[in-house]
Amino acid sequence: MTRGWNFSAGPAALPEAVLRRAQEGLLEWNGARASVMEVSHRGKAFEAMAARAEEDLRELLNVPGDYKVLFLQGGATQHFAQIPMNLCADGQRADYIITGHWSEKALKEASVYAKPHAAASSATSNFTTIPARAQWQLDPNAAYVHYTPNETIHGVEFHSIPDVGDVPLIADMSSDILSRPVEVSRFGMIYAGAQKNIGPSGLVVMIAREDLLARNPRPLPKIFRYAEHAAQNSMLNTPNTWGWYLAGLTFQWLREQGGLVAMEQRNREKAETLYAAIDGSNGYYRNPVEPFARSRMNVPFVLHDAALDAAFLKDAEAAGLLALKGHRAVGGMRASLYNAMPIEGVRALTGFMADFAQRHG
Amino acid sequence: MTRGWNFSAGPAALPEAVLRRAQEGLLEWNGARASVMEVSHRGKAFEAMAARAEEDLRELLNVPGDYKVLFLQGGATQHFAQIPMNLCADGQRADYIITGHWSEKALKEASVYAKPHAAASSATSNFTTIPARAQWQLDPNAAYVHYTPNETIHGVEFHSIPDVGDVPLIADMSSDILSRPVEVSRFGMIYAGAQKNIGPSGLVVMIAREDLLARNPRPLPKIFRYAEHAAQNSMLNTPNTWGWYLAGLTFQWLREQGGLVAMEQRNREKAETLYAAIDGSNGYYRNPVEPFARSRMNVPFVLHDAALDAAFLKDAEAAGLLALKGHRAVGGMRASLYNAMPIEGVRALTGFMADFAQRHG
Repeated sequence: MTRGWNFSAGPAALPEAVLRRAQEGLLEWNGARASVMEVSHRGKAFEAMAARAEEDLRELLNVPGDYKVLFLQGGATQHFAQIPMNLCADGQRADYIITGHWSEKALKEASVYAKPHAAASSATSNFTTIPARAQWQLDPNAAYVHYTPNETIHGVEFHSIPDVGDVPLIADMSSDILSRPVEVSRFGMIYAGAQKNIGPSGLVVMIAREDLLARNPRPLPKIFRYAEHAAQNSMLNTPNTWGWYLAGLTFQWLREQGGLVAMEQRNREKAETLYAAIDGSNGYYRNPVEPFARSRMNVPFVLHDAALDAAFLKDAEAAGLLALKGHRAVGGMRASLYNAMPIEGVRALTGFMADFAQRHG
Repeated sequence: MTRGWNFSAGPAALPEAVLRRAQEGLLEWNGARASVMEVSHRGKAFEAMAARAEEDLRELLNVPGDYKVLFLQGGATQHFAQIPMNLCADGQRADYIITGHWSEKALKEASVYAKPHAAASSATSNFTTIPARAQWQLDPNAAYVHYTPNETIHGVEFHSIPDVGDVPLIADMSSDILSRPVEVSRFGMIYAGAQKNIGPSGLVVMIAREDLLARNPRPLPKIFRYAEHAAQNSMLNTPNTWGWYLAGLTFQWLREQGGLVAMEQRNREKAETLYAAIDGSNGYYRNPVEPFARSRMNVPFVLHDAALDAAFLKDAEAAGLLALKGHRAVGGMRASLYNAMPIEGVRALTGFMADFAQRHG
């Protein structure tokens, strides 16, 4: 195999089996005598594929019947703005829990259409922890509470769903959706950019409770109204058909793997293997995040001497371990362990880390 | 070959050579040991590909230096709303030339952020012509004049660029961009959904004069501001990387074909071949559009007896002629002849049409 072990934080590795299926059908898809990219999204073949993708996602996440599933565009960042646009009256408060780069950015993009409030923040710890629930300053009249269950840059993850009372909870699940079972009914809305655990970039999957879609706080062009997308089964305009197709192949693959219970087990094993290698290195490698808040998806770590970073990255790449450079905001390394990364890749990384430590004393 | 001749209006046929290149590199792209979908858009390899795609597009269209090229998401429909959002003050007039379904829709989506005005319309002719320029009621203080050079449903196309004085001209060129050379300096802004003449759906290409990007009529989230996208080379957030890559392959293919002068020649030959078959059928087939406004890209036609439609479509499909059903708004048939359709496909269609007419008297 000449494909590497790809630890990219996103756009991230896709399951090889999914890529092979897409490759086989690239010129002739499903008897259509054309690529899936070349057929009308309003044709029967594409509509059947799209419906199956939604059904598989509903099955994987056990989505209740009063939730709509949308396949949208724009990246999670567009929805940082579009969610308050759809859900908040001018000047209405929306509470944000700040645990890293992405939750901060979500708050900033909301400010034109809402009065976003940082109800809790771990900024003073450099985002190495999650603020205790008891300290959150929530407003029971807020339009919603927004949080980021997994922060890709800081490697911080919630391991349970916070209780926010009757205010709808909204989660940017871009980087941990489908990594384990989740109780969808606890949320008002879940949304995720596809390019980590679902498919290629340019697709956003949203799971929204119907009562939230009924909010209508300001006049909007149809294309910005989630309710309009829901009414047209995400075909209000031409969707990202390739992204939807790849997402569907990924959902099938996940079901073949045993669903999210199996994925959770694998993801836990992968993360435990890597954290054990870091924690057992006598300080050669170090992860700064409080253990209870450590991410299973993105594991940032630093070497004891940053002067070794360049050699580490160069040797890793030569060993087929790709995209390990950490985000500039935190430096060092970062290994992203989304669903498509098998345990073998993690073992190759921990083996390399031990060898590197030995070679470079 | 088991691929059909694909006359889909969009998502439409892609050049087979482009699909083959994408297929070859699907699991391992460009020495990256990963798919192009699995690498960071901020990595050197992707950035180089992205820059080359922009350069090739600039070369093909001879884009002047004071225009930015953006690779966006959301489909043209999102930009129906986002253009007035970026360019019009509340209640400011924007002039729209209405020549079919898409220009009508563009006007409707603009109404939250502008006061759109139908400065001319061919609705009374059922969109079978283009209103004479002398009758357009343009306001010299309008924020812009918007038109749709080619209407895919009604098969109506402008064959020259209208003179609108000093008001910026904005064109939704989704269905005829890159089909012939165009004088970009005549426009304030050109935008196009990719899924007809550029690549897969989920990508929008925009060419915008810098002075228009400097307008700032209302507070906006960054993600909705074109100027912010331009400042970040369309990497304000994760772009549709697959779409950008396919677009780049298409631009390379167009250059290999001889560029837009060669494409124009081919597109003219293709359209003339099909219109000749229609006009020479003694009324068996009929296209209702005034000859001066006939589209080279989308050729709608009806059979003399609509009761034959089902047989025509069934036999055509059996003959490998795909996606010929007309839009429900006009009925009958529609053959879309974008760049990826070779003359051989058009000849196969006209041959079939003659044979069908003979068999069904």
